[in-house]
This record gives sequence, structure tokens and C-alpha cells, in this order.
Amino acid sequence: MKKPVEIAVTGAAGQISYSLLFRLASGEAFGFDQPVILRLLEVTPALPRLEAVIMEINDCAYPLLQTIITTDDPKVAFDNVDYVFLVGAKPRGAGMKRKDLLESNAKIFSEQGKALNEVAKRSVKVLITGNPANTNALITQRNAPDLDPKCFSAMSMLDHNRGIGQLAEKCHVRSEDVKNMIVWGNHSETQYPDLNHATVEGKSALSLVDEDWIINTFIPTVQHRGGQVIEARNGFSSAASAASAAICQMRSWIVGTEINDWSQWISMGIFSDGSYGIEKGLFYSFPVTVSPQGEVNIVQGLEISDFSRKKMQATEQELKEERATIEHLL
Amino acid sequence: MKKPVEIAVTGAAGQISYSLLFRLASGEAFGFDQPVILRLLEVTPALPRLEAVIMEINDCAYPLLQTIITTDDPKVAFDNVDYVFLVGAKPRGAGMKRKDLLESNAKIFSEQGKALNEVAKRSVKVLITGNPANTNALITQRNAPDLDPKCFSAMSMLDHNRGIGQLAEKCHVRSEDVKNMIVWGNHSETQYPDLNHATVEGKSALSLVDEDWIINTFIPTVQHRGGQVIEARNGFSSAASAASAAICQMRSWIVGTEINDWSQWISMGIFSDGSYGIEKGLFYSFPVTVSPQGEVNIVQGLEISDFSRKKMQATEQELKEERATIEHLL
Repeated sequence: MKKPVEIAVTGAAGQISYSLLFRLASGEAFGFDQPVILRLLEVTPALPRLEAVIMEINDCAYPLLQTIITTDDPKVAFDNVDYVFLVGAKPRGAGMKRKDLLESNAKIFSEQGKALNEVAKRSVKVLITGNPANTNALITQRNAPDLDPKCFSAMSMLDHNRGIGQLAEKCHVRSEDVKNMIVWGNHSETQYPDLNHATVEGKSALSLVDEDWIINTFIPTVQHRGGQVIEARNGFSSAASAASAAICQMRSWIVGTEINDWSQWISMGIFSDGSYGIEKGLFYSFPVTVSPQGEVNIVQGLEISDFSRKKMQATEQELKEERATIEHLL
Repeated sequence: MKKPVEIAVTGAAGQISYSLLFRLASGEAFGFDQPVILRLLEVTPALPRLEAVIMEINDCAYPLLQTIITTDDPKVAFDNVDYVFLVGAKPRGAGMKRKDLLESNAKIFSEQGKALNEVAKRSVKVLITGNPANTNALITQRNAPDLDPKCFSAMSMLDHNRGIGQLAEKCHVRSEDVKNMIVWGNHSETQYPDLNHATVEGKSALSLVDEDWIINTFIPTVQHRGGQVIEARNGFSSAASAASAAICQMRSWIVGTEINDWSQWISMGIFSDGSYGIEKGLFYSFPVTVSPQGEVNIVQGLEISDFSRKKMQATEQELKEERATIEHLL
């Protein structure tokens, strides 16, 4: 039997985790021959709610699940971990300013970054899902200076898959027929879902849909999809689809995109190396391929139109502003 | 590419389905090379809530998912289906008598049985999860006289896995080390989780735990686990663990128990053939094995103690009483 992998999940008593944990334990995410250890982090007041989740996980008698550790201490949660899903984040409360939201989360993620720096495996893969995901990724990474910045990525797969879903619906094809979707920038309403390089059944997407649809329907729909889902779910945000995207991004990161049917490229929020003129060190969503060994490579040499350039810069600008707000905590 | 399988789910906008549908669409349940078509049934007033779920499923861009059909008409939902999860049932309202609950559900499941009889594939596998599951299974089957009674099973895997979980915890082993759990009878508080034939790491469970624990802790814990989970989840019933059990039972039913690591035997609520003196035609949970071709065989020749016999008869008696309540609708 394979050696178990150690997987940490934060915000483990929350809604996204309720959709995520059972799929990690079942073997779906890491393979049906891969034993797993779950290390679940929650804030102290949520530990009783987490116990209810543990009851149900135990009731599934998952053969691959070796141990569950629950804790409110990041150093316990991240001890020797291979894979980390940073799901838990402070949601925006009524009347809360964006600055306050960024600062509250900066505190959570700087503590978690320090803990990862101290106790995680040096090869750890940390996926940041909790919003504002890209700036939270930046904070986490900057507080973990002994880890390679490539150990961190912010989740773009939900946006990426939303883009595929919208284009597939428009073209009356299945999602598997859509390739080379790109989401650039921040996981926020400034993100730029880009169809310039996408194909549908091998044909250029631009030959199938018109510019007006792209500019006035596709882009705003993907950008605002999170809010639409909240409205449709009577106030509850995307949980099952966010969990699916987290599994999709982590799996692609581990096994590579070559054996991955989701699309030829995926989008990941990663530490910018300066590609496409995006400031080095920002966590920015790029189109990437992943080798079977898990090496992430930004797709290079794409032609960028003036329209795209402006959109890419606008979302970069927002990331710089978010960073400025929490600069003193880095 | 394989031909898609057609999967119907009722109560598709409910909590169990929110945990189930994404796992059916991802490929976890039916295999990562098996395209799927989802046919989702809801009552008319819940169709808008179902649309919110569909938004999220579309946002996952599942490559195996070919089509989603939503409807409030069972004949549309069940048209030519291969696999059916009857999840939706009327929950017990405040002040509602058990008789009224049984009757309300009898109406739902008799309509669905008739529709299955008319339009489902003759090889359909129908898993009844909605409570009271065994009597709902009876109603469904009796209203589908042209289908083999072997096309129907009531869900016992949640109880079965709960039993494994409890025994594994008690013996400080992993769930995969527990084999040959049995749950007899009704999916209700009269069910009889039976350790007489169970093994733990190859040793008889009876040699590892004492009778007092079995009678006063194990049996009542498994019987009342549903209520415990509702309490721990502040009023919400098991959703993710019920969805997991549904996947587990359906998968075992399709691929067989030989290649199934969950345990050597599983428990399924099936049409009684009179084995162990249980009245023929009742839907009663038995220990079974399933061949790789999906043939379900009751484990025969087990020695039954007087204690077990009484417990098995008590839960049989409850099933007879439930049947008597809705006899006029059969």
C-alpha cells in the first residue's frame, strides 16, 4: 500500500469543506489507491461544529482514510503536510469596509504562512481558496520565506470552469470540447476571462461567437457569477462548485495537465515571474500547463490585443491596491 | 468513448442531492471513463432551487457530463434510465403522525413506481434512499410489476458503514480492517446491526468487544445515529454521509463486492426471498455479496442466535406494520 499523504484543510466546518472533505476522504481527489490523513483546522468556537462533520466522515467508513486530526492550532494542522487547502477566511460582514476585510484576513493568513514555513514539508502544495484569494496567497507566501514561492497557488479554476461552462452553453457543445480558456488576474470582479485563444471542437472560439457577446455577456457573466450564484441560492455562496474547482486545481497541480481532460491549459493564480509584463511577485492568474511531475509553466508567447492588455492591467492594478492595503502586515 | 449512462435523481434540489450530484457528474461514482447523463426530478415549487444547483454543476465543466435534464414529471425523469436514486421524500412535519407520513410517501413512490414500470430500462437499478426507505421501496416495486423485483433496493449502506465506523473506533483500527458487518431489517431504529459474524483484522469481533458494549452501546448507537447527527448538525440531517452511502451501495451493486474494499459483505435492503425466515416480498436488509455482473446474493447459512432471531423478527414486524398502514395503496 502507498504511504499516506497528509492533507490539511482550514475552515473545515464551513460549507465548502462540507462538500470537499468527503471527496478527499473517498479517494476521488488523490486516487483510489492513495491512503489519506486529514488534518482539519478550525477556529476554536467552530470545533463543536467540526465534530458533527467528523461524525459523518466516520459514518462513511472510508477505507483510504487513515486518521483525522482536528485542531485550532495551525502548527498542528500543517505538521509535515503534503497538500493544504486554505479554505477558511473571514467573510465580509455587514458594513465592513474592504480594507478591514483585507486586514482581518491578512492576520489569519500571515499566521498560517508562518506555521507552514515552520512545519510543512518543503515540497508542500498550498492552494488558497479563501477570499480575497490572491492577496491571501501573497500574505501566506510572504510569511513563509523558507518555502519556494512555487509551493503556493490561488484558486482560479472556479472562474476557469465557469468560463468553459458559459462558452460551451453558448456554442451548444460539451465542456470537454472547449480548450485553452484563460482567466487572467485576480479572483474578483476585475478578473479577465479571455477567449482569444480558446477553441471549441478545435475551432477558434472567436470564429463562433461575436465580439458583442464576449464583451457584454461572457466577460461580465464570468466576472459576476459568484454573486449570481449567491442570489440563486438565497444568500448561500458557491460551495459544491468551489470544492470541485479546488479538487480540479489541486489534482491538475499534482498529476499534470497532460492526462487531464478538463482542458489543455488551466488557469492558476501563481507567483508572477514577470511574464506578460505582470509585476513579479504578485499572485496573478495565468494560463499554465503542468508537467506530470507537477511543474507549473506559464503558457508563453501568446499574442495580447490592446483590449486584453487593458483588462490584464486593470486586474493587476487591483492586486497592487490590495497589496498596498496590507503592505504593513507583509 | 463509452456510451453514456442515464442516471435519475429525485429530490434533486435537496441537501443529500447537493452532496450527491457533483460526485455523480465528476465520475467518482460511475468511473472516470464513463460519460453520464443526469435526469433530475423535483416537485414543481422546487424547480427554481434546482436551477441554482444546475448553475453550479455547469460551473464545474465536468468533462464526463453530457446533458442535464430537469423536470417535475417522473416519466421524463425515468425515460430509459439505467440507474435511479430515489432520494426525495416527504419529511415528517410538526405534529404529523407516522401513518400520515407513510401515506404521503406512498403516494409519491407509487407514482414513481408506475413511471419506472412504464419507461425505465428493464435492467434498471433503483436505489431507494428517501425515508421510510424500505416501505417506500416496497411501494415502488409493487407499482412496477413489469420490472424484476431485483431492480430495487433500499439503502442500508449508511447503517452498515456507521456500524463499521463504530466498531473500528472501539477497536482502534481502520474501517478497512472491519469485515462482514451486517445490518438486518428496516432502515429505522428497529434495525439490527449484528456483530456476530464481523471480523476485525481477521479476528472475530466477539473476541475483542464484550457483550455489554454490543447490547448497550453499539446497537443503540447505530440505531439512533441518524438522530445524533441531526442534533450535532443543529437540526440538519445527514447529507454528505447519506450521499456517500448511496454512491457506495450503487457502486457495489454495479461492480460487485469482490473488487470492493469496503468490506467483504455489504448490507442491502432487498426483496426478501424468504431467507432466514423473513417474509417473502418484504424489503429487508440482508448481508449480501454482489457478483461482478451485479447479481446480488444473500449470504446463506449464517448461524443465528436466539438474541439475533428476536431482533431480526422485531424489525421484520415493524416492516409488516408499515406495510399494513399503506396496504390499500399497493
